Amino acid sequence: MEKISVLGGGSWGTALSILLANKGKNVELWVRNEEQFQEMLSLRKNNRYLPNILLPKNLNIVNNLENTIFEKDIILLAVPTHGVRDILNKIKGYVRSEQIIVNVAKGIENDTLLRVSEIVEEFLPENRFVCLSGPSHAEEVALDIPTTVVSSSTNISTAEYIQDVFMTSNFRVYTNPDLIGVELGGALKNIIALGAGISDGLRYGDNTKAALMTRGISEMARLGKEMGASLDTFWGLSGIGDLIVTCTSMHSRNRRAGILIGEGKTTDEAIKEIGMVVEGIKTIKSAYKLSEKYNIDLPITRELYKVIYENSNVKTSVLNLMGRDKKHEMENLSF
Amino acid sequence: MEKISVLGGGSWGTALSILLANKGKNVELWVRNEEQFQEMLSLRKNNRYLPNILLPKNLNIVNNLENTIFEKDIILLAVPTHGVRDILNKIKGYVRSEQIIVNVAKGIENDTLLRVSEIVEEFLPENRFVCLSGPSHAEEVALDIPTTVVSSSTNISTAEYIQDVFMTSNFRVYTNPDLIGVELGGALKNIIALGAGISDGLRYGDNTKAALMTRGISEMARLGKEMGASLDTFWGLSGIGDLIVTCTSMHSRNRRAGILIGEGKTTDEAIKEIGMVVEGIKTIKSAYKLSEKYNIDLPITRELYKVIYENSNVKTSVLNLMGRDKKHEMENLSF
Repeated sequence: MEKISVLGGGSWGTALSILLANKGKNVELWVRNEEQFQEMLSLRKNNRYLPNILLPKNLNIVNNLENTIFEKDIILLAVPTHGVRDILNKIKGYVRSEQIIVNVAKGIENDTLLRVSEIVEEFLPENRFVCLSGPSHAEEVALDIPTTVVSSSTNISTAEYIQDVFMTSNFRVYTNPDLIGVELGGALKNIIALGAGISDGLRYGDNTKAALMTRGISEMARLGKEMGASLDTFWGLSGIGDLIVTCTSMHSRNRRAGILIGEGKTTDEAIKEIGMVVEGIKTIKSAYKLSEKYNIDLPITRELYKVIYENSNVKTSVLNLMGRDKKHEMENLSF
Repeated sequence: MEKISVLGGGSWGTALSILLANKGKNVELWVRNEEQFQEMLSLRKNNRYLPNILLPKNLNIVNNLENTIFEKDIILLAVPTHGVRDILNKIKGYVRSEQIIVNVAKGIENDTLLRVSEIVEEFLPENRFVCLSGPSHAEEVALDIPTTVVSSSTNISTAEYIQDVFMTSNFRVYTNPDLIGVELGGALKNIIALGAGISDGLRYGDNTKAALMTRGISEMARLGKEMGASLDTFWGLSGIGDLIVTCTSMHSRNRRAGILIGEGKTTDEAIKEIGMVVEGIKTIKSAYKLSEKYNIDLPITRELYKVIYENSNVKTSVLNLMGRDKKHEMENLSF
């Protein structure tokens, strides 16, 4: 039986720990925050992130980072993207090269513009790596609601191994060898979800949001293609699938943050009210820099960057996306 | 100023008439049902389909089919797909070859498997034809909520002419020359929306529905490609855009019919409760036949066909779509 350490006691790390423990795996969930650790030990639930769900008896909550890495087959990174570098720095001395690193964070590092797999490679160049991504709100996975994800690795046998470890009848795991596309899809969709939330917060309609999402997936695919991803991946679970769930579900923090901003709150107020990491707000900065680096026009990213980082008026920005000067415009469908 | 006759007093025909009248166009809205016609004349609203919206003063409600065709530049067909043949048969003697036919019905004829443009060509082979399609719930267009659609014709100057006629600051019209793809996208998405509604009715989650929609667009694109459509069109407003709005909005009758079926109602009960045409239920039959004709596997269409036309258990069918026998399955992303 595989031994797995899940690093990070947020909603997704907790939900995946529950799933694996219910499959009978030997799972430790490492919780950094001492107070949260003690609370989870005593209450046997994650009161802050998944308040209504009891943890399986065989799920061990731990607090010592060095110990939890020891003798595990799989180390699952479930921390926000901006925390990945710090945790890798802390564990690199304990990790052995045969341990498989699985990442579930969805973002692009702000300063380096690296995908998570690239950050991991800096610290642990010999370890096999898998990105697990797709339309999978933690709140639903914890309730065993039918969900699909992809296990992506440049090494297909590693992707298949992780597929087997996580697969259940209600958690269907597919493999996809296009790691770049899978990582970019998961990161970039949070930007579009923020925009979709803003549209909702401004009380625009379902028609408006669908138009924004359609342009959004095209924008994601264009950047992805330039960065070496396969276009097809954007039409799969980790692309349009994840975009749809993030833009339409109230479980999405990125969408909820957007709604608050659309309603007139500042970005800081929105982040404070959500009370969890809003990856999209950071990813906008990375994607904006990438659009400059690759010299690609990303209209949604550009307008949201202006709203979030340059105090541009939110209504003006959304209308900039709708209105066009050209009298005759064809649908821009060339990727 | 263009003279336009809109044939059909449903929600979409009414909303487009309102839009055109507000643009100052000379519009007649032809309403077949005598009782509805009298009511719209006296109340100045479409009480059944758009109950809260007053008709503009310059919008003429008419009841005589021959008269309304006379001297119009554009004849807009806003009847259900299964009514198109009948109305074309009635008007073909009055229509002149220079009049442009615009269709907004989204379906595929059951017996002939023809797209609406092909039915029109049977009756009016000399007339220019445009299909107007995209994520555009009538209820929102009537309220001037920002909306995008495509004007599609094999004749690009005709598509551009219709683009100009309908374009407003909140109703953005793009052109797309791929008529086959635009027509198929609009028709086939209603099938997936029915499935999405069933998933919601069974109380599955946002994760589940996003997976179904992802497989849905892939299924639509595969059939479309085989029938001569451009794949790119399925990633545009009339493809994924319309699919998104139809699967996620409560304005969608197809989705609402699916919810009722998922909750245990029969198809007939669901249709009766919706009280309007549910195109998807008819389109399933056409698409199922097309999958046989073109020898393509369309799993969602097949399972829904079994539910709707062969009394298959709805829960079994949805689970058939989730569960897979193969232990290792890659994402099927080859179109």
